Amino acid sequence: MKTLKIPEATIIRLSVYSRYLSQVDRRGVTTISSGEIAEGVGVSPAQVRKDLAYFGEFGTRGVGYNVKDLQRHILKILGLNYSWPVVIVGAGHLGTALCMYGGFRERGFRVVGIFDNDPHKIGYKLNGIEVFPMSEMARVVEQERALIGIIAVPSDAAQEVANSLVGAGLKAILNFAPRVLNIPDDVEVRNVDMAVNLEILTFNLGFKRGRE
Amino acid sequence: MKTLKIPEATIIRLSVYSRYLSQVDRRGVTTISSGEIAEGVGVSPAQVRKDLAYFGEFGTRGVGYNVKDLQRHILKILGLNYSWPVVIVGAGHLGTALCMYGGFRERGFRVVGIFDNDPHKIGYKLNGIEVFPMSEMARVVEQERALIGIIAVPSDAAQEVANSLVGAGLKAILNFAPRVLNIPDDVEVRNVDMAVNLEILTFNLGFKRGRE
Repeated sequence: MKTLKIPEATIIRLSVYSRYLSQVDRRGVTTISSGEIAEGVGVSPAQVRKDLAYFGEFGTRGVGYNVKDLQRHILKILGLNYSWPVVIVGAGHLGTALCMYGGFRERGFRVVGIFDNDPHKIGYKLNGIEVFPMSEMARVVEQERALIGIIAVPSDAAQEVANSLVGAGLKAILNFAPRVLNIPDDVEVRNVDMAVNLEILTFNLGFKRGRE
Repeated sequence: MKTLKIPEATIIRLSVYSRYLSQVDRRGVTTISSGEIAEGVGVSPAQVRKDLAYFGEFGTRGVGYNVKDLQRHILKILGLNYSWPVVIVGAGHLGTALCMYGGFRERGFRVVGIFDNDPHKIGYKLNGIEVFPMSEMARVVEQERALIGIIAVPSDAAQEVANSLVGAGLKAILNFAPRVLNIPDDVEVRNVDMAVNLEILTFNLGFKRGRE
């Protein structure tokens, strides 16, 4: 691990490779080539090899990779050899959808609490997870040793929520509000913009339809 | 427009640049350098120039880019010089959250209908948009000239929904269900995996904490 300069696109592909490795592992496959991974996920074999090469030598030339070993390596690279307690702020539709989302638990993310300032929601359970008032944030974060918070509130409340998350000691924030947040440098932030995904589709559609 | 081989990371950055250009345009700025764009969005100036160079020459050396012209060019590249009618399938929490999401309308995406097979939801309006039964899909898609569909249903219903969307003539699908779909080659698909965003955070947290 010499460098931090790993392109984000590589991290995203590692995440995709590891989902594919889970699938083939469940089918009982024990060895896999970069070509097979490439075909399974729709990238070039050279890309797979290049991505994995960032993290040292896996696999044996002409034999391929041991599926379980490679999967274990990738999960460790991604930091998924732990279970990560996560808190969500905002018990509206988005927060509830995220709370129900099976894809988190599958990858080792465990929602340990949802926070809202609506007294009608507090005390309810969503998918077995309690809705807490904002005033309980620091207590729950400490008790559950959470490091990651998800912001699922309207834009105009997002900065205040971010301040609460930072104040409670969280070290990483996933922000779904379409607004840029002021966050201290020692806290990781990732902004999710739902429209970007549609824009990649319209870019591709535009090319197909022969844009001028 | 010679080539289709534009890296997806470039498209995503164009999308980010154009959001930033909207902001500076609203502040009344008329000219901007690649360095200023770079600083505003947190990438290197060389990256900005490289991304824009894919699409020909904009701007004047030493003067910079005209903000409105550059914005118009980028929106055209992204296919956002049109308004895009979009349909959503699934009127649960995720579909409802997407329907309420202000970021779509801002970028020219207009939700024209939500579909669900729950008779209790049909006929209701979410954010002013009607919930239709699945049987109305082809009619609504044709009437609204929609090309893009969003799948916001549970995994086990996703393939059937995808078939309906393709059958109704849609040309692009954004899939939120954590499942790989069989889709004809002439339909663009993009799978959104919410957990990937968390994995990029845990990757970065892992490095900071000194992974072995």
